[in-house]
Amino acid sequence: MNYALVLNLLGRLLAVEAGLMMPSLFVALADGGRDALAFAYSIILALAAGLLLILFFRPRERELHAYEGLVVVGLAWALLSAFGALPFMFSGAAGYFWDAYFETVSGFTTTGATIFSQVEQFGKGILFWRSFTHWVGGMGILILTLAVMPKLGARSAFLARAESPGPTFSRMLPRMRDTARVLYAIYAVMTLLLTGLLMLSGLPLFDAAIHALGTAGTGGFSNRNLSVGAYNNVAAEILITVFMFLFGTNFIVYFRLLKGEGIKALRHEEIRTYYLIGLVAIAVITLNTTAHYGDAATALRHASFQVASIMSTTGFSTSDFDLWPQFSRILLVLLMLIGACAGSTGGGIKVSRIMLMGKSAGREIGHTVRPRHVKTIKLEGRLVDAETLHSVMVFFIIYVFFLLLGTLLASLDGVNFTTSFSATASCLSNIGPGLSLVGPMESYGHFSPGVKYMFSGLMLLGRLEFIPLLVLFHPAVWRRAH
Amino acid sequence: MNYALVLNLLGRLLAVEAGLMMPSLFVALADGGRDALAFAYSIILALAAGLLLILFFRPRERELHAYEGLVVVGLAWALLSAFGALPFMFSGAAGYFWDAYFETVSGFTTTGATIFSQVEQFGKGILFWRSFTHWVGGMGILILTLAVMPKLGARSAFLARAESPGPTFSRMLPRMRDTARVLYAIYAVMTLLLTGLLMLSGLPLFDAAIHALGTAGTGGFSNRNLSVGAYNNVAAEILITVFMFLFGTNFIVYFRLLKGEGIKALRHEEIRTYYLIGLVAIAVITLNTTAHYGDAATALRHASFQVASIMSTTGFSTSDFDLWPQFSRILLVLLMLIGACAGSTGGGIKVSRIMLMGKSAGREIGHTVRPRHVKTIKLEGRLVDAETLHSVMVFFIIYVFFLLLGTLLASLDGVNFTTSFSATASCLSNIGPGLSLVGPMESYGHFSPGVKYMFSGLMLLGRLEFIPLLVLFHPAVWRRAH
Repeated sequence: MNYALVLNLLGRLLAVEAGLMMPSLFVALADGGRDALAFAYSIILALAAGLLLILFFRPRERELHAYEGLVVVGLAWALLSAFGALPFMFSGAAGYFWDAYFETVSGFTTTGATIFSQVEQFGKGILFWRSFTHWVGGMGILILTLAVMPKLGARSAFLARAESPGPTFSRMLPRMRDTARVLYAIYAVMTLLLTGLLMLSGLPLFDAAIHALGTAGTGGFSNRNLSVGAYNNVAAEILITVFMFLFGTNFIVYFRLLKGEGIKALRHEEIRTYYLIGLVAIAVITLNTTAHYGDAATALRHASFQVASIMSTTGFSTSDFDLWPQFSRILLVLLMLIGACAGSTGGGIKVSRIMLMGKSAGREIGHTVRPRHVKTIKLEGRLVDAETLHSVMVFFIIYVFFLLLGTLLASLDGVNFTTSFSATASCLSNIGPGLSLVGPMESYGHFSPGVKYMFSGLMLLGRLEFIPLLVLFHPAVWRRAH
Repeated sequence: MNYALVLNLLGRLLAVEAGLMMPSLFVALADGGRDALAFAYSIILALAAGLLLILFFRPRERELHAYEGLVVVGLAWALLSAFGALPFMFSGAAGYFWDAYFETVSGFTTTGATIFSQVEQFGKGILFWRSFTHWVGGMGILILTLAVMPKLGARSAFLARAESPGPTFSRMLPRMRDTARVLYAIYAVMTLLLTGLLMLSGLPLFDAAIHALGTAGTGGFSNRNLSVGAYNNVAAEILITVFMFLFGTNFIVYFRLLKGEGIKALRHEEIRTYYLIGLVAIAVITLNTTAHYGDAATALRHASFQVASIMSTTGFSTSDFDLWPQFSRILLVLLMLIGACAGSTGGGIKVSRIMLMGKSAGREIGHTVRPRHVKTIKLEGRLVDAETLHSVMVFFIIYVFFLLLGTLLASLDGVNFTTSFSATASCLSNIGPGLSLVGPMESYGHFSPGVKYMFSGLMLLGRLEFIPLLVLFHPAVWRRAH
């Protein structure tokens, strides 16, 4: 590994993070200066650390191997979360580093799992930073910093692969830098649009911005203890429901709409399947919870919001779905595993992977019946090669492995199976709430420090789709040369 | 599909099943004639149905396509379970067909999940039949009937593939008929040996036979409400612990021992991994349950028995492991998913499949770091081709799919997540008990008829490793010709 280059890049990213903390400093200053010093100190520390790394490590060889790019991605998310945790420490919002780190990892990974059961007493600066990490994390700190990376040569193209999960996305990007800007613009415009619409629905500017940032990043941190449910505002709920679905949609569709493809852009297998699953889940849960809510309209309202929230892996809530009938609760857990579309800001296994696995299973059965009949697997009209299928299945195996390992280790805290399983699924898929002791009205605050660090690791693993962190355990990575 | 041939074969298998009911009839007669009529009626019905099928359907073409063999396997297990359920109905042991069917499927699939919370009031004939289905199912009704099948031509060799799960087993069998006999002999001798040893440990002949049959088939039905725990007999527990592990071992090792390979026969990766997992699990659970039992010796005793019981997918119990600490309970659930060795009478995903998936994941990470370094995957010193790896992963995908689907559907009965998940895992892996409402001191009796049928289906799917039942949903199977 080219240590100088990797450390230099991490330094640059830290400097960028210092810049990303500036808006929160301004919010803190506007909030009567509350917690402004906490941000000032954090910015100075991140900047100093970043500059030190940049100055001390000057790479001679500026060519980046693919695996080194992955190492940068993996280390950057872990390191930037550590510095991003500083405002929580300095402001006194979190008393222990593991709590502040959990909250920041949860932010940058767009999970939205929180260790705070009460957030309304925090200053606006802290609340804004908390939600802003979602927004930054949503499209990837490293996509944001692509304006820096292209200087390192064309080989950095794999970064898009690492950050924007899924097989189809990278092929749309002939020139990474331009595409990053287009993505960034779409993302920013949609966020601003939602902020404006939420204000029209009656939310104050600050609340509208917080929930727009959380929706855009499919994160889920709220500035209200009762999440979106606190407003009891149907218009706002509908807006957030729609935008959660939209941010969980493969962004390729927005590209194609911008290119003027019109209705043709919607002829996308994954997106259609994603919305089909969503509609079926809403219908089934509405039926199953009508008795719980007393009438079908209320059931439909909460079912739609919660399905959009879980499928897009956002994690907002309007109702305590932990009180729903068992069937609906478990259906939500299954939606947690599936997650959103590839190429979106959402997490989870991803709809396109589920589709490819289903097609593989179907082909296997067909092959048994007609061994001489060769059947290919297609997605979006294109052939999917054996290597891609293999990668998808290995991803699934690793996902299930960490799901079960996390469930086992979380149980060391003595929590029940429903809690440990749903908490692990929720962290791996970057959602936030789970069931039972991590239900939407609960928090992750009661876990032991060790389990909180484990969940932080699971959130990072899930968000980065495992490989960028798992390569760190390969001995060859740490050798000086290849 | 060659309907005449398939139906003719099913008829032959029904006639064989009538014969297999004879020992139970004798036990019933020896038990003062209690339930003897129930067996007599059942035998007559099975024989009549079998003969009718044989006489009515006389195939012109006697060549069997591979997929037709699978269809026979799938239909046979479902059909023979229906006729095997008759003694439970005629004797009055079960009041409803879905209960009798569940119990018989559970027997033939060597699951041992029971709908009866009290079994000690049943006659010895019924109890013997219940356990004998384990023994028959254990090595596969169809392996038993291989003396009939070879007449159909060499193409029936796939039957061994369908019945004896796993990639390595069928390669040892150059002449299927001879091998079936050798297997049958090993199996019978080991069962008789265990029966004798259990009698030496103090169990009455009948109890010794019941538990030997259940151990051999890795089934788990007991004639005592408290299972093996009822005897509080350490010697018997140790014997059953050892034999549960032995019957969960890849039978290839016994072949090789018979061939005189000696210690070399034990150089088997899967078997070593299987025992390693078992020892680690015993050690960890002993530590974790010492406080629960008050001393380490008692904890070790129950941990060993339960780990052997779950890993071998038998399902006997000596202690209510549902009262264990969360960590140990969840560890048992993970062992349920892993299961036993391929080529054994045990169920589950199988140790060799877990190993291949782990190796694939490791290779993927290595490939990311060193893309030009080609790494092959080996098991037992032999190269594993891409097609086998693909099949293993597809198996895993289908397993997880049915695990989640079963969990969801079982929750329609309103049971908690722990119950529905562990019950589904237990049925799919052919174990028997699970956690919470299906814990070792509970039964499946409280489920609704629909969910009982679903669990019956899951037991069949798991035992037959999905494909023989899933091909029934392929439209091409039902066409008259190919």
